[in-house]
Amino acid sequence: MVLDKIKQPNDIKGLSPEELNQLSAEIRQFLIEHLSQTGGHLASNLGTVELTMALHMILDFPQDKLVWDVGHQAYTHKILTGRKDAFDHLRQFGGLSGFPKRVESDCDAFDTGHSSTSISAALGYCMARDLSGQDYKVVAVIGDGALTGGLAYEALNNASQLKKSNMVIVLNDNEMSISKNVGGMSTNLERLRTSSGYVGLKDKVLNSLETWPNGEVLIKKIRSTKNGIKSLMVPNMVFEDLGIMYLGPVDGHDIKAMTETFNMAFNIKGPVLVHVITKKGNGYEPAEKHPARFHGTDIFDIETGLPKRSNNPGYTDVFSTVMRKMGDRNPDVVAVTAAMAEGTGLKRFRNMFPDRFFDVGIAEEHAVTFSAGLALGGKVPVFAVYSTFLQRAYDQVIEDVCLQNLHVVFAIDRAGLVGADGSTHQGIFDVSYLTSMPNMTLMAPKNKWELSDMLKFAISYNGPIAVRYPRGEAYCGLEDHRTDIVLGQAEEIKRGKEVMMFALGSMVKKAEEALPLLEEAGIDAGICNARFAKPLDYDYLRSIMDCDLIVTMEENVYTGGMGQQVESFLFENGYKGKVLKIAIDDAFIQHGSVTQLFKELRMDAESIRDRILESLGK
Amino acid sequence: MVLDKIKQPNDIKGLSPEELNQLSAEIRQFLIEHLSQTGGHLASNLGTVELTMALHMILDFPQDKLVWDVGHQAYTHKILTGRKDAFDHLRQFGGLSGFPKRVESDCDAFDTGHSSTSISAALGYCMARDLSGQDYKVVAVIGDGALTGGLAYEALNNASQLKKSNMVIVLNDNEMSISKNVGGMSTNLERLRTSSGYVGLKDKVLNSLETWPNGEVLIKKIRSTKNGIKSLMVPNMVFEDLGIMYLGPVDGHDIKAMTETFNMAFNIKGPVLVHVITKKGNGYEPAEKHPARFHGTDIFDIETGLPKRSNNPGYTDVFSTVMRKMGDRNPDVVAVTAAMAEGTGLKRFRNMFPDRFFDVGIAEEHAVTFSAGLALGGKVPVFAVYSTFLQRAYDQVIEDVCLQNLHVVFAIDRAGLVGADGSTHQGIFDVSYLTSMPNMTLMAPKNKWELSDMLKFAISYNGPIAVRYPRGEAYCGLEDHRTDIVLGQAEEIKRGKEVMMFALGSMVKKAEEALPLLEEAGIDAGICNARFAKPLDYDYLRSIMDCDLIVTMEENVYTGGMGQQVESFLFENGYKGKVLKIAIDDAFIQHGSVTQLFKELRMDAESIRDRILESLGK
Repeated sequence: MVLDKIKQPNDIKGLSPEELNQLSAEIRQFLIEHLSQTGGHLASNLGTVELTMALHMILDFPQDKLVWDVGHQAYTHKILTGRKDAFDHLRQFGGLSGFPKRVESDCDAFDTGHSSTSISAALGYCMARDLSGQDYKVVAVIGDGALTGGLAYEALNNASQLKKSNMVIVLNDNEMSISKNVGGMSTNLERLRTSSGYVGLKDKVLNSLETWPNGEVLIKKIRSTKNGIKSLMVPNMVFEDLGIMYLGPVDGHDIKAMTETFNMAFNIKGPVLVHVITKKGNGYEPAEKHPARFHGTDIFDIETGLPKRSNNPGYTDVFSTVMRKMGDRNPDVVAVTAAMAEGTGLKRFRNMFPDRFFDVGIAEEHAVTFSAGLALGGKVPVFAVYSTFLQRAYDQVIEDVCLQNLHVVFAIDRAGLVGADGSTHQGIFDVSYLTSMPNMTLMAPKNKWELSDMLKFAISYNGPIAVRYPRGEAYCGLEDHRTDIVLGQAEEIKRGKEVMMFALGSMVKKAEEALPLLEEAGIDAGICNARFAKPLDYDYLRSIMDCDLIVTMEENVYTGGMGQQVESFLFENGYKGKVLKIAIDDAFIQHGSVTQLFKELRMDAESIRDRILESLGK
Repeated sequence: MVLDKIKQPNDIKGLSPEELNQLSAEIRQFLIEHLSQTGGHLASNLGTVELTMALHMILDFPQDKLVWDVGHQAYTHKILTGRKDAFDHLRQFGGLSGFPKRVESDCDAFDTGHSSTSISAALGYCMARDLSGQDYKVVAVIGDGALTGGLAYEALNNASQLKKSNMVIVLNDNEMSISKNVGGMSTNLERLRTSSGYVGLKDKVLNSLETWPNGEVLIKKIRSTKNGIKSLMVPNMVFEDLGIMYLGPVDGHDIKAMTETFNMAFNIKGPVLVHVITKKGNGYEPAEKHPARFHGTDIFDIETGLPKRSNNPGYTDVFSTVMRKMGDRNPDVVAVTAAMAEGTGLKRFRNMFPDRFFDVGIAEEHAVTFSAGLALGGKVPVFAVYSTFLQRAYDQVIEDVCLQNLHVVFAIDRAGLVGADGSTHQGIFDVSYLTSMPNMTLMAPKNKWELSDMLKFAISYNGPIAVRYPRGEAYCGLEDHRTDIVLGQAEEIKRGKEVMMFALGSMVKKAEEALPLLEEAGIDAGICNARFAKPLDYDYLRSIMDCDLIVTMEENVYTGGMGQQVESFLFENGYKGKVLKIAIDDAFIQHGSVTQLFKELRMDAESIRDRILESLGK
């Protein structure tokens, strides 16, 4: 095994071309085998095996800085920097993260998780390096999807201004259907400089493509188009116009071609973009055929590519069904997503109502302001988005939706702990930031029926309104508790004399689990489903002020969360009992199973019981 | 006076060409006269007189939708839509807003204030219109500065995808120094389609430029450059490549040329961009010479153009001085701004340390992630930004700075009530959103010396740290109270037995003003300067738990603010007294003088006394 020779950073540099080829095959096999047992981002990582190897041939770690955009494609980088053995515990609690982490290795230059940050971060490194008179190399690897984010454009714009910035941007273009993407673009683009260096490169690229899986088709396509190689340019970004030297396209599975191009790139002054074409899932047929399914995969059977666990319907499925129904009933309902049609469950809506479905790309800011415009035009836009990504449109939610009091529905998926993706993806701030916005209404459902009811309520409402629901399986308990959703009204599940648990959304289930444990301990406890984090049901809160202990429960950080607001109300209104707030600590929460994280955070049923007993002094 | 004929929307349509010319002169005179007495955005509005008139010749109000990016250039639009008489109370409490407001007129299609939103909003309108089978016109007017914001790029990118979108984007390009902006850009750009329509337009433009103030120079420039008119293209945006039809450039002070071009634009299918060249401050010499000074001006003398009020040094000046000093002392200190070198006071730093100063354009997201990269490269970046604009980088502050625990200093100017700019600009959320972020430290100074000390502390600290300070005059009281800044330590100004006012930043001054009023009322009150909103000084709070009343005071919304966090701590630790929270209501705060707003919000000294007495039951 060549892979056994790779024990630490830069070990790859001693390998022969044959060994390199063998290594790429072995890494691919390693990834397929390991991920079939742990789950993880398979398709993107199979796509970047050779790209990462080529970069590791050129760069010296840890001096040189390699910034991975989004970061879910850095597994080979982890393998090549001495973290191979840690893959047994990939994305597990205490184990290897699925994303670059500076605490994990000094070869990880920047922690990522959210899209479109790499060029900005790399540019910062470059400027710092030049000011300090140092001379390390800086590389940003960004996907074609991430380039649709405005942040990437802001960074390119700035990079071109800061002429001195020597850095290489690798555009990891894994869309095979480039011509389709080009769409109605002008065919007479004149983007590529006809430098001698480029002309030489062009031939090299065409030659190298011959050895590439679909190389022949590609060569034919290149030669047949009016402008030759130029039509392979990624659409909608015009690097040379931005003052950024363009090299490419290069076969992203040909290590030799890439190392040559990277070497060339580092000899050019100023920012250079190397356009690399890779294939998601490369080398594993099921992943090549279904890259979306193998984007983030659960454990699977290598032979068939089929998942080994069948997941029960999740909240995303419930959302998907309701949207389809509401789309049918109300022709004004339109759906907006930021490149997450599958993840958010809008695929069915898109198929049924293609005209009323808008995928704006990885562009959450635009998604929100665009939704504001749709609302003003008389539509009812539903923006389906993960909690962690809605953070990217914080200002637009305030300025363009709340300030104008517009009827935009935010369907916030993955709200709360998300598990394996870890700290960059936890949806644990939205209760804080949304409740601090004037005019906003925020709900969270206790079970699958309530999500359905709340979405219907949100669509029939008039004003900014959000529903947050967690990742994963939809809770099917408490089916009998299905009363009308009324603005700002909580729902009492069971009245307790000593203790009342006032729980938001997913925490109602935890309260239910804790209830028998409390009863065993001789506590007369009850549960109220808060339903609304904003506006709070003050009348109800007033009615439970005779309890000894009121326990607030939410899957959100303490600071600015529902608990603080409930507590504030209670004490200002003369409550004499105690308040216990169950929420997430003021810290970033690492990866691990959601169950394990709940335990660690003392938010599982047993811990809740213990904390309640402690509060009561029992 | 032709202006007297303009009483309601669309009145302009009946005017003859001569009357139109007279009207533009009268409007210009009206603006100069009124703004010399009320203050306001003069330069930008003098630049858009004819542009607005041309749009009003073409559009029917209120059916057609006109979206002003940023919105500080919409005064002529207000005049033409029946709001002329309201200019006596421009930007004053209860008076006319300086920005478009839907509540003010149904001719205002979208409320703006923050940059780069117009294309997104207009696109939303277009899609809603088309889905509903309506056929009104939609126009977005965006400045060349606003185009540097990633949101504008996201919207352009999306507009090109949604081919059906009939809308006109007016690029209001008021940079005369176009060639300088182009910088090292490739000269062989082939951006403009050589359509017959365009060729005709080109001649028209050249002809119309002859009548334009600097027309001849411009014509010469156009004809002399290699690619003719193409070199006038705005840099860094490549509309045609994005699938957006480009028309222009057009003289933005020639009503006839513009109406003809707009008519042409509305006859083209799909999104069209009309490039209009205007001059900031056009027609008023002092404003033409000093557009920055007349961006947002206080009252001034028309004859000389000089301000009538001399403002005392503000917090911005203090920041400016400290940055210069710190730049001298510590070569690692670098400064970052998002197109606000003057507003934030970084001009002097830029002049002294040009290599260590980075103006990234209107691109707050990039500014933050770029700063993260600078910090990782060993620099100490200070990002100077208005509170309301830092909202635009909420996600980057969490993900790229706090999560990685990087030493980035946020110098947050205009934190709190900003006055005349109103609801879109109030900096009243930062305490809430920054304190909910793990690893963040947040300070606020009581006076000018403390701002200086805090900035020095922030620069010597290691981790994410922010200092918030208000707009306007720096407080010079409490000079004797100057103790070392220690992480998480509050500063007691005076101990009170009954009441302790625990005040953040600017509110220390209010507490000082309230103190004698309380003494008069026989209350033994004291003041503590919180200094840190995060981490809070829990030891100190514990030490004042024998008071009857603890009053928290902050220029921030209640929800998630410092008060809730103090209250939460006190009650959880057995405090038996009362807590009164002085903060900003959960509502958007309109424009008006800061003094008046404080009164309205019951946050001025008298109101504070009254509220304290009320709380004490006296």
